[in-house]
Amino acid sequence: MSSIIAIDAMGGDFGPQVTIPASLECLKASQNLKIILVGDEVVLNELLGNALSEFKGRLSIQHASQQVEMDEKPQSALRGKKDSSMRVAINLVKDNQADACVSAGNTGALMATARFVLKMIPGIDRPAIISTLPSTFGHTHVLDLGANVDCTAEHLYQFAIMGEEVVKAVEDIESPRIGLLNIGEEDMKGNEQVKAAAKLLENSGLNYIGYVEGNSINAGSQKVDLIVTDGFVGNVALKSIEGAAKMFVSKLKDAFSKNIFTKMIAVIAYPVLKIFKLSIDPRMFNGASFIGLRGLVIKSHGGADELAFKTAIHLAEVEIEHNVTRNIIDKVATTLEKREQI
Amino acid sequence: MSSIIAIDAMGGDFGPQVTIPASLECLKASQNLKIILVGDEVVLNELLGNALSEFKGRLSIQHASQQVEMDEKPQSALRGKKDSSMRVAINLVKDNQADACVSAGNTGALMATARFVLKMIPGIDRPAIISTLPSTFGHTHVLDLGANVDCTAEHLYQFAIMGEEVVKAVEDIESPRIGLLNIGEEDMKGNEQVKAAAKLLENSGLNYIGYVEGNSINAGSQKVDLIVTDGFVGNVALKSIEGAAKMFVSKLKDAFSKNIFTKMIAVIAYPVLKIFKLSIDPRMFNGASFIGLRGLVIKSHGGADELAFKTAIHLAEVEIEHNVTRNIIDKVATTLEKREQI
Repeated sequence: MSSIIAIDAMGGDFGPQVTIPASLECLKASQNLKIILVGDEVVLNELLGNALSEFKGRLSIQHASQQVEMDEKPQSALRGKKDSSMRVAINLVKDNQADACVSAGNTGALMATARFVLKMIPGIDRPAIISTLPSTFGHTHVLDLGANVDCTAEHLYQFAIMGEEVVKAVEDIESPRIGLLNIGEEDMKGNEQVKAAAKLLENSGLNYIGYVEGNSINAGSQKVDLIVTDGFVGNVALKSIEGAAKMFVSKLKDAFSKNIFTKMIAVIAYPVLKIFKLSIDPRMFNGASFIGLRGLVIKSHGGADELAFKTAIHLAEVEIEHNVTRNIIDKVATTLEKREQI
Repeated sequence: MSSIIAIDAMGGDFGPQVTIPASLECLKASQNLKIILVGDEVVLNELLGNALSEFKGRLSIQHASQQVEMDEKPQSALRGKKDSSMRVAINLVKDNQADACVSAGNTGALMATARFVLKMIPGIDRPAIISTLPSTFGHTHVLDLGANVDCTAEHLYQFAIMGEEVVKAVEDIESPRIGLLNIGEEDMKGNEQVKAAAKLLENSGLNYIGYVEGNSINAGSQKVDLIVTDGFVGNVALKSIEGAAKMFVSKLKDAFSKNIFTKMIAVIAYPVLKIFKLSIDPRMFNGASFIGLRGLVIKSHGGADELAFKTAIHLAEVEIEHNVTRNIIDKVATTLEKREQI
């Protein structure tokens, strides 16, 4: 079975300069993949060269006359950019012409447009953003990363149900361990929403392992596969870790550029430092899924380069292959049914 | 003028094995320092050797027959341990026999006891925990780090007023730049409390620079000196960064122990790696201040070693020297007065 991905080719800080080469690389790597590049057909055609004939039947262009700016307000994009590359790419998912959309465009506009066009899955109140963060061994999935600033216990519970399906798909594990982010592991700790969500999760049939703290995000696969939290806390945690990563790399560079001797050592240590840098390369973790919608949307980092954007496309492929959206819809329906019977 | 510090000598994972040598080192380093070691006098006397005579007039023992366990519930410590080393040390602050108390004991019990014994500063609703986190250049002060899971805008505003005095003292700067932690820097972003707190801070006369994101914590001194947030978010950010630090060090070790060649490079690079490790050494950031109380309490990490505990004692010295508690009391009184006049 082939996967069809609509790419918002104009989105991101670098637009088609990044989205086109990344798309072509992905087409080369995966024979089952079809890509629809959405954007200004003149620009795209020029950059594509003979790629359309090279990938005949697997690569096409869908023209869109507008594009959403990186700092544009969601409402402005929603009302004034009905023919934007972002909107048209999402429309393709809605019309079942594509299985997923990948965009490096602005997060607020992408979420607002996706929600407006695709609509919510029945039984889910709010969409959420889920992604992986690197951990000592492997990585940890975390949601919500910023779609919802205030969450009730019920929202957190719904996030857990949806997140489980993503982790199952991406990690190929039966029953992911789910933790609730808190400021201590004892029962009495936490705010009211978190405590109430813990009760819901204990009785959910999910593999709920209890509260976890911020340091569990990077402790990762030895402990927990999926961490649930509200979008405010999740976003702060994500960006705190990003900030820490930058600081570490900068301090490591400082240490190696202190004087002529340390610089010489840097030359000798270069191959090792390269391995280290690769092991924490944020490009390998690019791609966040918007879930809770009736269609799959993957958000790439705005500043993604070719490698990073490829990672996001690959994430879309994996989630399509494992029917993540379908599975979430089914799981939510079953869960709702069970609740109604009680 | 001399500073008198009461040390909860039995607190922490290692008790007097760490608190005594750290205290003696600090006495050696600072002629104006006096220390009262609080704990089991038999145990302390035995470990002190001839130190009491060596530091005659600057070192004394205050006996306390009990000690608070590291996993003891705050209420149990408060009710059942009235003669604990922690409680007696805080009592010394209350009775003006010491200028500050330093404890590596359990955070919940220490906060509950400090609040019960010392009472709140008039005009302040809740105590907060403030500490520094490393940043690319220097460090950033953050509060609250976990004393309050739910905070109103007014609480956040009070944290800013108190935090400013701590930063002024510790950094010796006139007008610290204060940021409010949020999930975006635009006005429309954030939850209701944060938006309302922003309004209060804009009209506060403080050097409020606006919203900052999680990655500003480690961007630090180039941008912001003090970051204000609620205790849930602050604690998650703190622990996420701690977790990231552990992961980075572990991945760096992995890269250097991959094979015989990388291990040889590790030997050559050792002096540089040592400089790097020192630059992110968490022991250099040990010590969090409980503020909002009518007396100074410094919490050391429970697992602190001698160097880390010395850092916490030194923090107490600096805050005593700069009259942080007095300054907070005065600042709050002035602020309240101004508000009443409006």
